[in-house]
Amino acid sequence: MQAFALTLDKFLDHAAKWRPNGQVVTAREGGGADRIGYADLRDRALRVSSVLEGLGVEKGDRVATLAWNSQAHVEVWFAIMGMGAVCHTLNPRLTAEQLVAMVVQSEAKVLVASADLAPMAREILARAPGIARLLVIDAAAPAEDLLEPLIASTRPDAIWGDFAETAPCGLCFTSGTTGAPKGVTYTHRSSYLHTLRILQADVMAISGGDAVLAVVPMFHANAWGLPFAAPAVGAKLVLPGRQTDGASLARLIAAEAVTVGVGVPTVWLGLVEHLEATGADLPSLKRIIVGGAPMAPALMERIETRLGVTVQTSWGMTELSPSGTVAPLGDPSRAALSGRPAVGVDLLLTDADGLALPEQREVEGHLRVRGAAVIQRYFGHDTPATDADGWFPTGDLARIDADGNLMITGRAKDLIKSGGEWINPAEIEAVVGALPEVSLAAVIGRSDAKWGERPILLVETQGEVSDEALLAPLRGRVASWWIPDAVYRLARMPLASTGKIDKIRLRTEYGGG
Amino acid sequence: MQAFALTLDKFLDHAAKWRPNGQVVTAREGGGADRIGYADLRDRALRVSSVLEGLGVEKGDRVATLAWNSQAHVEVWFAIMGMGAVCHTLNPRLTAEQLVAMVVQSEAKVLVASADLAPMAREILARAPGIARLLVIDAAAPAEDLLEPLIASTRPDAIWGDFAETAPCGLCFTSGTTGAPKGVTYTHRSSYLHTLRILQADVMAISGGDAVLAVVPMFHANAWGLPFAAPAVGAKLVLPGRQTDGASLARLIAAEAVTVGVGVPTVWLGLVEHLEATGADLPSLKRIIVGGAPMAPALMERIETRLGVTVQTSWGMTELSPSGTVAPLGDPSRAALSGRPAVGVDLLLTDADGLALPEQREVEGHLRVRGAAVIQRYFGHDTPATDADGWFPTGDLARIDADGNLMITGRAKDLIKSGGEWINPAEIEAVVGALPEVSLAAVIGRSDAKWGERPILLVETQGEVSDEALLAPLRGRVASWWIPDAVYRLARMPLASTGKIDKIRLRTEYGGG
Repeated sequence: MQAFALTLDKFLDHAAKWRPNGQVVTAREGGGADRIGYADLRDRALRVSSVLEGLGVEKGDRVATLAWNSQAHVEVWFAIMGMGAVCHTLNPRLTAEQLVAMVVQSEAKVLVASADLAPMAREILARAPGIARLLVIDAAAPAEDLLEPLIASTRPDAIWGDFAETAPCGLCFTSGTTGAPKGVTYTHRSSYLHTLRILQADVMAISGGDAVLAVVPMFHANAWGLPFAAPAVGAKLVLPGRQTDGASLARLIAAEAVTVGVGVPTVWLGLVEHLEATGADLPSLKRIIVGGAPMAPALMERIETRLGVTVQTSWGMTELSPSGTVAPLGDPSRAALSGRPAVGVDLLLTDADGLALPEQREVEGHLRVRGAAVIQRYFGHDTPATDADGWFPTGDLARIDADGNLMITGRAKDLIKSGGEWINPAEIEAVVGALPEVSLAAVIGRSDAKWGERPILLVETQGEVSDEALLAPLRGRVASWWIPDAVYRLARMPLASTGKIDKIRLRTEYGGG
Repeated sequence: MQAFALTLDKFLDHAAKWRPNGQVVTAREGGGADRIGYADLRDRALRVSSVLEGLGVEKGDRVATLAWNSQAHVEVWFAIMGMGAVCHTLNPRLTAEQLVAMVVQSEAKVLVASADLAPMAREILARAPGIARLLVIDAAAPAEDLLEPLIASTRPDAIWGDFAETAPCGLCFTSGTTGAPKGVTYTHRSSYLHTLRILQADVMAISGGDAVLAVVPMFHANAWGLPFAAPAVGAKLVLPGRQTDGASLARLIAAEAVTVGVGVPTVWLGLVEHLEATGADLPSLKRIIVGGAPMAPALMERIETRLGVTVQTSWGMTELSPSGTVAPLGDPSRAALSGRPAVGVDLLLTDADGLALPEQREVEGHLRVRGAAVIQRYFGHDTPATDADGWFPTGDLARIDADGNLMITGRAKDLIKSGGEWINPAEIEAVVGALPEVSLAAVIGRSDAKWGERPILLVETQGEVSDEALLAPLRGRVASWWIPDAVYRLARMPLASTGKIDKIRLRTEYGGG
């Protein structure tokens, strides 16, 4: 059989040749959109590779991006990865100080930034002398350091793919919601195989006829692989820029006839609230794929009913490229379950010491994972991130049902120790979150002189609901000493940079006792 | 990222762990079926590996199979491939003499044969002294050389997958309809990537909820990859044994609630004729995937109307593992088109000398192909099967339309030279085949003293139709000198061992002039 290196440039090559008019569409702020076909996008990405070569970027060098989901960001991605350099995506919701620490660690040579993030980018540049050059994209008006004039004056003659498939292509730091951020290096091979996995009919099932809205950010965990999957099949890739509020998304979905939306639950809450307020409908939308955080059953039902879509739940991690499990389309949707692993991902439940549980079904354990797109070693670390048998400990607690469906039951680090016994906040959150009035619920431990820690409940609600009504469903469902000591109403639940509930902030503000 | 070798044993490991009760079902002759879950099938396949080890089979050794599509054949496949040996599938429709030549070339050490093929297997054994042992499967009654007692007395403790992903896993000889049979070696990596490709939503889109009927034989081109794809997603794999007549297939589809059927057009003709005769319906069947031969538009319409299914056309070759293009489900079905290539397959049209045509769309050319599951070199050959740029010349003539759909327009070797000019029989066959009365049509060249060759038409029809009615639609559609000189009615079109029209036999019987 022929030699065929699994490198990501092949996805854009294929799209340019076989779906040249397949589009990448970027929402403009204030309305309207920019659009480009895959053939033209490839031509521009090749020019960007030449620009980077001209700036001294070589194979294996890191190039950082600080940008929203946009056509220009996709072009820069393929330019960096196609030439064999490594795309280090930076999360604009972190502080300049945090980002400086990351680019110093990665030794990035060039920084690419969206125009509105240029001030932050310059702050990073001033403190990270290893970065030789700033390139600004996504600018609506002339500005300093623009990439665009350099593209115009360069020829599309870069050579892509001239390296091993095991070469690194990307670098992303974990969100740090549960610990210090650590770098995860993706390879061409791992991301290629991840793409083929999510394209399966039983996973994300993205087809050339789909218009896929990637609300999940490209700056975190590769936007769940969509910027690779869409060109691989020639699907229309719809990018929201930085506007991910309900009204902006509704406008974009309607204008671009989006069929599949992908994002964290809070994004869809915003969309549903907007539609409920305006009475608008989005008939093109068929499916929503959620992940990144547990889905409250009430929110799931509200989304399915109001939008007339099927919700597919999923579970993943930065360390998993990021997809771990997805609920197949034919399965009945259940908010509590996160779907099953497709071939290439394997799951194991262990005890707290990492020993495999004798039974793997219908019991709770510590979740470990293994596979073609699962981390072996964090960036810059000498020791593996896996155990001796090659399993990566996720830090999640989980059950797997008889049909193989994964249910994340908590984070080991979120567990609350009260009177020497463990309380799992996720179980309490699931019960309270099932109430129709509850949009978001979080349980954290508060310092307690007598018990060490005691659980408290923080909720974002819609409509009137008493403390007693919030806690009543817990009686008989969890042990009586698990019931939170206090309830706090928040106008807006604080969210971390990835859209997950920011428990670190909640603990800082409410956990002191 | 973690090391993860792309080896085929992983598909069955995944099925056994995540879909242990997913079934492989084999039709029994005379009715009824045998069934087994993937977990039990894996256990048995591991035992077969141990049996083969006990017979001295080592990594890289060839083990030949001469068998119908059955559970036992699937077990033997995974046993051979899982341990790193090479499964050399033999086509029972060839002669013992032809098969002896093949196993002598492959140096097979063991031969596994279905019980009803044991006499042929013994004939091969007598003339191929390299084969040390015969193992008989699929036996309804006690018989000599049975594998079953050896399975029962062995433990499932073989080690699978302990070899490089580039190791060979299978060997299949081309059908020889257009030349001497040549061996094609598949590797674990190429077949693994082929499987991930066909599982895409835009290709075969097989889901864990499907029941897939593999009428395409395992002895040729891996039954189009279905014995790998079904366990990879946990789909039910339904195997017809040797009975592929319309009545047997109808019974099996109804009993097993088959959702997707895969086979050559003539198989579905038999099914439709049976249903038309009996008035039966098959409500579970949703899709039929055809390939291996062009689909007459009339037959396609008959199938879609009578069965209430969507037909997906496709194109492939033994040398392509075998899938090349498949019509995505969302596309309107058109008999003349064979679908588009998914990423991992690329197509090129050249002139007769192999130079790329300047235009690649809406022109006819010689088809070349490149990809991860495309042949590099025939078994035992020193020279590559590809050109200097790595393209494999298929021998097919083809057009590609503006949307990237492939249309095979003929075989270069089938072209008829009349008066120094070329006639393409496939174009004539397409016009005549579109008549509702025509089930199968073939045009071959007959020796002619004056013109060198002249085309003649051979047809299998249903209902009355005059010669003139058969030829009339050609007028104005093809040059007047392309119109066949004679029409022959055949009660049954001769089919080659793979179900394609046997043009070699037609030329022998009718081409002499």
